[in-house]
Amino acid sequence: MTENTHSDTLLAEVTRGGRVESRHYGAAVVVDASGKTVFSTGDITTPLYPRSTVKALLALPLLTEGAADKYALPPEALALACASHQGEPDHVAVAADMLARTGWDYGVLECGAHWPLDARATRALAATGEQASALHNCCSGKHAGFICLACGTGQDPANYSQPDHPLMQTMARTLAEVTGAPHSDANRGIDGCAIPTWAIPLTALALGYARFATGTGLSAERALAAQRLRAAMTSAPFMIAGTDQFDTLVMHDLAPRVLTKMGAEGVMIAALPEKGLGIAIKCRDGGIRAAETAAAALIARFGDEEAPVLNHFMRRPLKNWNGAQVGELRAAAALAGDRLPDTAS
Amino acid sequence: MTENTHSDTLLAEVTRGGRVESRHYGAAVVVDASGKTVFSTGDITTPLYPRSTVKALLALPLLTEGAADKYALPPEALALACASHQGEPDHVAVAADMLARTGWDYGVLECGAHWPLDARATRALAATGEQASALHNCCSGKHAGFICLACGTGQDPANYSQPDHPLMQTMARTLAEVTGAPHSDANRGIDGCAIPTWAIPLTALALGYARFATGTGLSAERALAAQRLRAAMTSAPFMIAGTDQFDTLVMHDLAPRVLTKMGAEGVMIAALPEKGLGIAIKCRDGGIRAAETAAAALIARFGDEEAPVLNHFMRRPLKNWNGAQVGELRAAAALAGDRLPDTAS
Repeated sequence: MTENTHSDTLLAEVTRGGRVESRHYGAAVVVDASGKTVFSTGDITTPLYPRSTVKALLALPLLTEGAADKYALPPEALALACASHQGEPDHVAVAADMLARTGWDYGVLECGAHWPLDARATRALAATGEQASALHNCCSGKHAGFICLACGTGQDPANYSQPDHPLMQTMARTLAEVTGAPHSDANRGIDGCAIPTWAIPLTALALGYARFATGTGLSAERALAAQRLRAAMTSAPFMIAGTDQFDTLVMHDLAPRVLTKMGAEGVMIAALPEKGLGIAIKCRDGGIRAAETAAAALIARFGDEEAPVLNHFMRRPLKNWNGAQVGELRAAAALAGDRLPDTAS
Repeated sequence: MTENTHSDTLLAEVTRGGRVESRHYGAAVVVDASGKTVFSTGDITTPLYPRSTVKALLALPLLTEGAADKYALPPEALALACASHQGEPDHVAVAADMLARTGWDYGVLECGAHWPLDARATRALAATGEQASALHNCCSGKHAGFICLACGTGQDPANYSQPDHPLMQTMARTLAEVTGAPHSDANRGIDGCAIPTWAIPLTALALGYARFATGTGLSAERALAAQRLRAAMTSAPFMIAGTDQFDTLVMHDLAPRVLTKMGAEGVMIAALPEKGLGIAIKCRDGGIRAAETAAAALIARFGDEEAPVLNHFMRRPLKNWNGAQVGELRAAAALAGDRLPDTAS
């Protein structure tokens, strides 16, 4: 690959005043649970970090090892374990409740603290004079799930985020088995919330979610755990992300037929249980807006879905601070096919 | 241009765990005030919206028409007129003071209101129970400058943001003359703050800043106005952006030899008065992080600058929420040449 060319494809364009202002390139793949590629474009083979898109896969051991039942975790908690949430009050409350069931509080979390990603939640928190804690970290539900798993299986949670902790070894093994891609020291990086993230091909990520969507290719225990997690995500889409977020809006309208999960640096997955498909997308520049746009297009096309929420994300109006439309963010025609709406909405 | 190829070049890469995680492509050009191209890469000819990078050029009439002197605007105010600020208290105070000198308050502003871009400023404002106003809009200094210009030249400021208002016609004429590119209805879009933005080639944007940097090719009045604006930006770099922002950090250390200005959607300019050069960059995907990285590289190389602040932006460490370094954001070697530091710092 030279500097001036690459094998990626146009995912989405930003327009203003009728001109294309910005362009996002990347790769996408749609596979079934047998591993058959239904659609692909761009570089789908070079390993990349799936980041938070694997959270639902990382939550499988919480159920298969019995910890979810031991602590009687409700669907909201199971959904939050799969979430990148916005730090809104309901997210924080559920994370705190998960920890309380184990006898711990947020001091055990190793994800670090940051202010809520939701601007209104941050302003409301600031207005109280309180500080942000690790509970507000967008990954606090996943980490609370780790604590439930550790405590529920008799492990000391100390240093649970480190690659040599039994908990992270369970995660590596689970991801390797579900995606079919190796997870070792050789392909390991550190995620934003301190746990390992392993670089895998986009095809393997999509395969993992085709299996998660259907249970095909999973052990009976994992297939049941995946079914319960899908039900939790369906019943509590707010927990997966939060107000005005892509995952929450799409799953509110389309789950259980469509499940989605964003990840940092422009990675996105979707699972389509009724179609038996998994979708994985990487916007090469890390732009989440384009990954969302591309996901909406591929869900409409391969999920055979016609839905206002998908039309909105395929052609999203861009407005200035006064609310006037100045352009749009739209999916590449090559992705959307005949599903691209005629106008932004 | 097919979907899988484009004429842009690699500007910057994000790494994690030793792998490239994300890549940004785009274009860059370095020109002198005679219009001679010193360096170029990528598509530098297709017209694009320069967005907020032209603010210092838009401020020229404020001085040439006498309004800055009529209202005795201090350097902080002249700098704020060229700014995309973070809505911090000093920014808001200077914008309010500019308006007060004309007898108006923020009710006259047509830029719309939004919460401060600086997270600490937003939290502090929220803690007081107050709401954000148009003064917190990142463009409030530019708009306050427009009000000073309108009032100082006997114009009614009502609807000043509309293309047919004499003020915006002055802006179109000024930009056309300084950049050498046409500014008409045919290449006009609407910016985020409601005023027009005109699509021009990246080369024209760079030429405008080579002229702004040197006075060459400008009328005597405009050359003097540019000199005063450069001095204002040099004396008050905080006003141009704010805490921890690229423009402020770079100009704090390197002005008056180096002046920079970011724009939305990954546009960036730099002016190098001693070298007689203007630089313009477009990160095609709109990523400001890559535009900053590329700007640092080109400033180091064509400004012959060796500075920690440039080294930092050429190879920026990326840290997780716990403060551990997990990767870096680094300039493409083709841009930085032998200026690329050996390690991130």
